[in-house]
Amino acid sequence: MFNRETYIERRKRLKESVADGIILLLGNVDSPMNCRDNTYHFRQDSTFLYFFGLNYQNLAAAIDVESGEEILFGDDFSMDDIIWMGPQESIKDKAAKSGVTKTMPSRQLSTYVKEAVQQKRKVHFNPLYRAENQLLLQELTGIAPAQQQEKASLELIHAIVALRSCKDANEIEELRTAAAAGYQMHVTAMKMATPGTWEQKIAGTIEGVAMANGNPPSFPIILSQNGETLHNHDHSNILEKGKLMLVDAGAQSTEFYASDFTRTSPVGGKFTSQQREIYEIVLAANNRATELSKPDVTYLSVHLEAAKIIASGLKEVGVMKGDVEEAVKAGAHALFMPHGLGHMMGLDVHDMEDLGQVYVGYDEETRPVNQFGTGALRMGRRLQPGFVITNEPGIYFIPALIDQWKSEGKFTEFINYDRLNAYRSFGGIRLEDDLLITNDGCELIGERIPITPEEVEAVMS
Amino acid sequence: MFNRETYIERRKRLKESVADGIILLLGNVDSPMNCRDNTYHFRQDSTFLYFFGLNYQNLAAAIDVESGEEILFGDDFSMDDIIWMGPQESIKDKAAKSGVTKTMPSRQLSTYVKEAVQQKRKVHFNPLYRAENQLLLQELTGIAPAQQQEKASLELIHAIVALRSCKDANEIEELRTAAAAGYQMHVTAMKMATPGTWEQKIAGTIEGVAMANGNPPSFPIILSQNGETLHNHDHSNILEKGKLMLVDAGAQSTEFYASDFTRTSPVGGKFTSQQREIYEIVLAANNRATELSKPDVTYLSVHLEAAKIIASGLKEVGVMKGDVEEAVKAGAHALFMPHGLGHMMGLDVHDMEDLGQVYVGYDEETRPVNQFGTGALRMGRRLQPGFVITNEPGIYFIPALIDQWKSEGKFTEFINYDRLNAYRSFGGIRLEDDLLITNDGCELIGERIPITPEEVEAVMS
Repeated sequence: MFNRETYIERRKRLKESVADGIILLLGNVDSPMNCRDNTYHFRQDSTFLYFFGLNYQNLAAAIDVESGEEILFGDDFSMDDIIWMGPQESIKDKAAKSGVTKTMPSRQLSTYVKEAVQQKRKVHFNPLYRAENQLLLQELTGIAPAQQQEKASLELIHAIVALRSCKDANEIEELRTAAAAGYQMHVTAMKMATPGTWEQKIAGTIEGVAMANGNPPSFPIILSQNGETLHNHDHSNILEKGKLMLVDAGAQSTEFYASDFTRTSPVGGKFTSQQREIYEIVLAANNRATELSKPDVTYLSVHLEAAKIIASGLKEVGVMKGDVEEAVKAGAHALFMPHGLGHMMGLDVHDMEDLGQVYVGYDEETRPVNQFGTGALRMGRRLQPGFVITNEPGIYFIPALIDQWKSEGKFTEFINYDRLNAYRSFGGIRLEDDLLITNDGCELIGERIPITPEEVEAVMS
Repeated sequence: MFNRETYIERRKRLKESVADGIILLLGNVDSPMNCRDNTYHFRQDSTFLYFFGLNYQNLAAAIDVESGEEILFGDDFSMDDIIWMGPQESIKDKAAKSGVTKTMPSRQLSTYVKEAVQQKRKVHFNPLYRAENQLLLQELTGIAPAQQQEKASLELIHAIVALRSCKDANEIEELRTAAAAGYQMHVTAMKMATPGTWEQKIAGTIEGVAMANGNPPSFPIILSQNGETLHNHDHSNILEKGKLMLVDAGAQSTEFYASDFTRTSPVGGKFTSQQREIYEIVLAANNRATELSKPDVTYLSVHLEAAKIIASGLKEVGVMKGDVEEAVKAGAHALFMPHGLGHMMGLDVHDMEDLGQVYVGYDEETRPVNQFGTGALRMGRRLQPGFVITNEPGIYFIPALIDQWKSEGKFTEFINYDRLNAYRSFGGIRLEDDLLITNDGCELIGERIPITPEEVEAVMS
């Protein structure tokens, strides 16, 4: 936890940004794996962590915007709990750590919310991603899970997004720790990428590397020689010489801040000339995006600039053709990069995605683009100092997508379909760094993981 | 997966054990960690795995007991799914692997169930532990989550428990693989148990060892020098010389069968004479339980025999006193062993606990005992060949519990409270093996992890 003044100040600012009513913030409960008591590793809700810092199950909080009263709802432990789970702090002591003085037993939450509803007071809540909390909210407010998303408080969402978007010095320190853990994961993976190695062996090992440092993965590890599948959580292949291993992995700091990096390395340690040619294009796009990222620039424009580097590089290679600007405008490059350049990062790897990506990554000025590829960009709006974003261009050769576009005769003016046969088993390349927007530009978070072909080959040798 | 005849046969037997109606079996969906799309490692429901073997998200099945018809509900993948998740088998192909010929899109499940309800047919379902499935069941049947447990089909529960309780040769092979993975976890932990080492370092490393072999932990690792806390998932301590490290950990085979072992080792590699004295008592209880476990014996009686070994050993040490039989009958030993001797194990580490422990571990003849300690025994009924159970006696010195009992003057005829001061920082010892009941006795599953003090010290040296 940060010091309690941090949490008091954050809640003060939250209260200032919401006009009236009650703010209801639900912490997470344990998630059952294959029975109620066999659970996954507990992960607290990030918004709850942001405002209270309390990493415990079964907590909820209510903030009365008008009176300023803050209440933490939770229960003290029984002797049985102590036998099975060890001595625990009292709910009073937990609350005190985040500067909250009033606590109530969990069963009183229902009465509290019902009273507020009866008094016709507004009860602000977030969209909920855990079904357990959806059920709880239904019990508290009578709103069925299917209606909760649309009844969530936009005022609350905007207030939280405004606060959480800009990271302070303590948060950046945490992000650096998370980055250091991610660095270790990636370098370990590169060193293991020899022909004949089972992907799961590497994925499991780097998960262990992260866990052993107390920095669990911030998202399920993507590691595959079939890097053309964007979120490939299958690790069943045996690495083959001539393939590329794409690893997209990051860790959480002890305060639950994320890192998120992607590197792509040649199985066996040496890039082929074909691989290197494509790799250099992705690297150039990544470097250019870092150069361009600074306050007041929209990330949508940076995304499109990166897309142009990719289209122009692929044109040089002979895979694309025609006018680069036109190709990107039409979305032809999206055959090769069907995703966005990056997303906000913080307490969540896709920061605040639970609140609604459109509120996090877009605003009234910058609206989402309805086009295959750029439509998948999670973060488009103007950058501000303190924003933390990922920069992750990629080039992929996805046989099923190529075949579909080709059969539809799509963008034949920009794509040399006959040249694509040479790339059918290429896989994919993605190179991802984490950027902190500063007052006049941006800086990489953490030491840069080896990224030039020479650096990567040196690690692997 | 096993071959499809296995699944066809299992479902045939299931249909034979349920009189009429529709059996509804829901597979699991992904569990969100901190937003909908950032999920935990997928774990399929064990009963669904048992009858279908299909390790995919978003499946459900209906079995018409009268007509014999079996339907797998699930959806084929879109191009977008292929881009993000890779090429996928069709739902038809998935179904075929478990010998099911009829498939329907997920959205038709609702119509199917509603029709059955309208026709006044019985719809059998299990108690559900995932809130997502509780919400789905509510949508399908109109039964609110809070009422689902009591409306679950006892007939179905009993039929499933009867089938899953006795493990066949293929299942035992899987359990052996899981045991081998658990062996590696434990030996790795023992070797790392040096003074000054962070518990999380060891816990994370052995989680990685398991993951790297494709055998994820079957439950959250318990690893602590405060072994007196029975389910201690906190790994924050730095190991100190003179303490005992208790590790309760196991892995899943590639077909999701579990192992579950506990070992307790002296930090630094040498037991003190006080530790060894208590350790030998627990080991004697473990060995005696293995000797006694065979068909037709109730596991409750084995539990009570193990409790007597513990009470008599503690009497020799001077911590207990009086008549051992009387002490165990009264439950005085439970100050030191407040849990049961073991539980069923199979596809779940606590096998079928989601269906209700009382149906798994007890029957009409052997009823649960309402007494602190023995009341926590999950498995009491008569053993049968093919049952797989854990054997996990322990002795713990839990300061809060000792203080409570002492202040209440509880069992002063059996407990020498004044002798307990010497054990206040002792911690706890548990020694756990996995047993397969054979035709005339039982056998340990997997090579026995080093367990005698000499063996443990040899590993650590």
